[in-house]
Amino acid sequence: MIKVEVFDTTLRDGAQARGISFSVKDKIAVTQALDAFGIDYIEAGNPGSNPKDLEFFELVKSVELKHSKLVAFGSTRRKDVAPEEDQNLISLLQAGTEYVSIFGKSWDFHVTDIIKTTLENNLEMIKDTLLFLKSKGKKVIFDAEHFFDGYKNNPEYALEALKAAKDGGAEILTLCDTNGGCFPEEISRITKEVKEKLGDIKIGIHAHNDMGFGVANSIAAVEAGALQVQGTFLGYGERCGNANLSTIIANLQLKKDYELVPREKLGLLTSTARIIAEISNITIEDSMPYIGKNAFAHKGGMHIDGVSKASHSFEHINPELVGNEREFLLSEVSGRSTILEEIRRVDKDIQRDSEATAGIIERLKELEYQGYQFEGAKATFELVIRKYLGKYKPFFDLVYFDVKGNYIGKKYYSTAVVKVKVKDQIELTVAEGDGPVNALDQALRIALERFYPELKEMHLIDYKVRVLKGEENATASKVRVLIESADAKNSWTTIGVSTDIIEASWIALVDSIEYKLIQETLKRLEDFG
Amino acid sequence: MIKVEVFDTTLRDGAQARGISFSVKDKIAVTQALDAFGIDYIEAGNPGSNPKDLEFFELVKSVELKHSKLVAFGSTRRKDVAPEEDQNLISLLQAGTEYVSIFGKSWDFHVTDIIKTTLENNLEMIKDTLLFLKSKGKKVIFDAEHFFDGYKNNPEYALEALKAAKDGGAEILTLCDTNGGCFPEEISRITKEVKEKLGDIKIGIHAHNDMGFGVANSIAAVEAGALQVQGTFLGYGERCGNANLSTIIANLQLKKDYELVPREKLGLLTSTARIIAEISNITIEDSMPYIGKNAFAHKGGMHIDGVSKASHSFEHINPELVGNEREFLLSEVSGRSTILEEIRRVDKDIQRDSEATAGIIERLKELEYQGYQFEGAKATFELVIRKYLGKYKPFFDLVYFDVKGNYIGKKYYSTAVVKVKVKDQIELTVAEGDGPVNALDQALRIALERFYPELKEMHLIDYKVRVLKGEENATASKVRVLIESADAKNSWTTIGVSTDIIEASWIALVDSIEYKLIQETLKRLEDFG
Repeated sequence: MIKVEVFDTTLRDGAQARGISFSVKDKIAVTQALDAFGIDYIEAGNPGSNPKDLEFFELVKSVELKHSKLVAFGSTRRKDVAPEEDQNLISLLQAGTEYVSIFGKSWDFHVTDIIKTTLENNLEMIKDTLLFLKSKGKKVIFDAEHFFDGYKNNPEYALEALKAAKDGGAEILTLCDTNGGCFPEEISRITKEVKEKLGDIKIGIHAHNDMGFGVANSIAAVEAGALQVQGTFLGYGERCGNANLSTIIANLQLKKDYELVPREKLGLLTSTARIIAEISNITIEDSMPYIGKNAFAHKGGMHIDGVSKASHSFEHINPELVGNEREFLLSEVSGRSTILEEIRRVDKDIQRDSEATAGIIERLKELEYQGYQFEGAKATFELVIRKYLGKYKPFFDLVYFDVKGNYIGKKYYSTAVVKVKVKDQIELTVAEGDGPVNALDQALRIALERFYPELKEMHLIDYKVRVLKGEENATASKVRVLIESADAKNSWTTIGVSTDIIEASWIALVDSIEYKLIQETLKRLEDFG
Repeated sequence: MIKVEVFDTTLRDGAQARGISFSVKDKIAVTQALDAFGIDYIEAGNPGSNPKDLEFFELVKSVELKHSKLVAFGSTRRKDVAPEEDQNLISLLQAGTEYVSIFGKSWDFHVTDIIKTTLENNLEMIKDTLLFLKSKGKKVIFDAEHFFDGYKNNPEYALEALKAAKDGGAEILTLCDTNGGCFPEEISRITKEVKEKLGDIKIGIHAHNDMGFGVANSIAAVEAGALQVQGTFLGYGERCGNANLSTIIANLQLKKDYELVPREKLGLLTSTARIIAEISNITIEDSMPYIGKNAFAHKGGMHIDGVSKASHSFEHINPELVGNEREFLLSEVSGRSTILEEIRRVDKDIQRDSEATAGIIERLKELEYQGYQFEGAKATFELVIRKYLGKYKPFFDLVYFDVKGNYIGKKYYSTAVVKVKVKDQIELTVAEGDGPVNALDQALRIALERFYPELKEMHLIDYKVRVLKGEENATASKVRVLIESADAKNSWTTIGVSTDIIEASWIALVDSIEYKLIQETLKRLEDFG
């Protein structure tokens, strides 16, 4: 078992991805999540270029970390300034971390053409900077920016840059494929050559995903002797992203003889990923290895059949090992058996060749054609089945609703009026809300809660809108609304489709309430034996 | 230059991804796009399991394909049925394609435990099926399902399965990593061993992405001698997806001595990807290598500076080679120079250290804090700059607007009333629409077009809604609306943020109109010299 250190730069390189913008509070929350998962190093900001980062390093001092070491990031001194006068290095020291990471140039072309100095001076910049930081008691990780491109162009000079950092007292030399343009065999070969030529110093790898090799290149380097992997937990980063640590950790720890995080933590991989995504306000790609919603979701009929017989027939690992779940998807390609399973939850007597099975599949296809998708909205699908089988009675009837929004003073208000018939009584209610759907939700609840007090237990936890087709006039396109609701024990998702976002929301809202009321009714029936 | 054939299964394996559902018309459009790009084989459906696919194969006969060969997909005969009586094979023949692909078992465990027959019978099933199809004049590609897992478990048997297919007359033997659980070095070693042992028959590779190795494994197989690559153009597929062909094509054709598509087609890579995504109603991941929106988007200040000096300093290839574009993103980490560039489009006299620059950056940060993001909404950012600099005058003033929606008969209607002051006149207009935003857009246009007839040239082409924060009650969260508008020459995107979707839409709508009117005014000024 070889220990490979994990170095997460979600808060620094990850913040360079489009759409990512962390508040100081977000950064502290991500730090805590990474620490709880057992990540070794957390690169949390660049105090020289972003003053907000200094505020973070100040505040984080009061947060107790159990496992992780914080790292502040900066660059070698400017070409014509002594380290002790370099403003970025001064800011870096103010961060007050034990570890700092310093990036420097190792590609000769970047030295001469981008920062425009001599090759000799660049080597001095590296060594000076590290000696200065060492003299201030810092432990330094040296990121050799563009190392592989540099090595391919001028191997002697790239190695000299590493030697300057080693002479300056670096703890770790990280080889960066900054542009993400290398093949795994190049990473492997060059890492081995560096190991041979540099002797006894720890080597790290920093890979990007511009060729789809973020994970493969990181692992190629580890197999060639690198003992530290830099990346971002979810693969976010500049351009096509950084190496995805969640994938690398699972690949190496589950399938090879490496330990990256404490063994008992691996089962938290998926939940840690979701916490970080939530804080980052980013949706995890459904197809992300190990942690994505689809990573163990099966849709093809034969796959579902195989997994039902033996899970490893179509799963390379057991999803529980990484805290994820298996899921069978509903759709026209998923085959009768999956749909039948859902139908038989409602009525055990229905068989594969029952007329009702064919009828429900027909209905499913019609609704899919209209833009419905039941893979993520099983609650609505249960209602479709109940309605088809006559095992459904509305809990209320809509007479009308009326939503309106306008400016009153300087503030925009939405108001909804709902008229419904519940248990033979007419209820007319009104509510204001933050937005028309919120107003509708409030007004409907006022009307119904008197009759169905259990609705107080439920609340909406997510609301998603998807425009279905780009047409000539996009505001007239069809929209699909998904509403996720929850009570203390369960959560369920419903769907509505319409050209009007309000109507689509209303459809999903009504389904979410009726689903809750049906479950409550069934529970009571059970209680009575 | 070695020719490697490309086999796209977007329409078959890709359709097994969550969220993908193709109509027959969609399938024909995808086929045409792949053909125009020069893909060699298009696996377009499984006529035995999905009757809709037979309809496709019938209709596609009238479509002229310039380059691609269509392939219908099916499985070996059932264990206890002769090929000529097997319903799936009969359907497969009905597809009427020159090529068919047949998958069969090569992992002994799957034979005994999933389809539950003898190892001997499975070999007969493979050979029988292929001989039968050959006798009907078909060319057969044999997909050895789970080949690598099978080979790891029982190499002799896995090879016997391939030999049965070779004896049955297969043109190509495709080695499948169906569960996506192999490392590149395993794929490489096993592919080489198969090449040695099977002799002169073409080998293909079919890889999945469950370990993030879809691309790396496909390329490992090609380097080991495979001459055909199966995958899906955008990487969609069961679970974590199939190998991403767009990445594989660019990696091998731009950086190694292989030809996968006709040389002149590579510049169409990005547009082909976008056409397929559009038809599939799927958003391409922004970070997708080569073709993603972020693949050549730079946000870090030093990266932007580097690329401005020499593009290859932070780009592994020139984006033009694959028909993509470079972009510099606006944000607090993008550095003053990018923001300054935008400011100087409005006022050339402003300098890096002008007071206005600092003030605008401050304003940008405030708005980002409220949930605005300008990376995708440069038109709104230009208006922010103009408003800050006083280079802006409203084209109209809102007195009030009033949106309402209700059921009239069985149909839900949205109606908007808009009262605005334009050039000292009060305009009060009303319009119905498909949804409240569409109604508002219509009413506002009626009010303004009399004064600004150039608005008739512009229309909305995309409308996106993103809920910003999941709070206790999700319908009360903040929403971010992005509206993309276009006239005959240009397109531009504006953004609005509010807790109310209608208000957020209104903000973005007004910006989109004002941006258009400003551009028209500037153009007229130019015309007058």
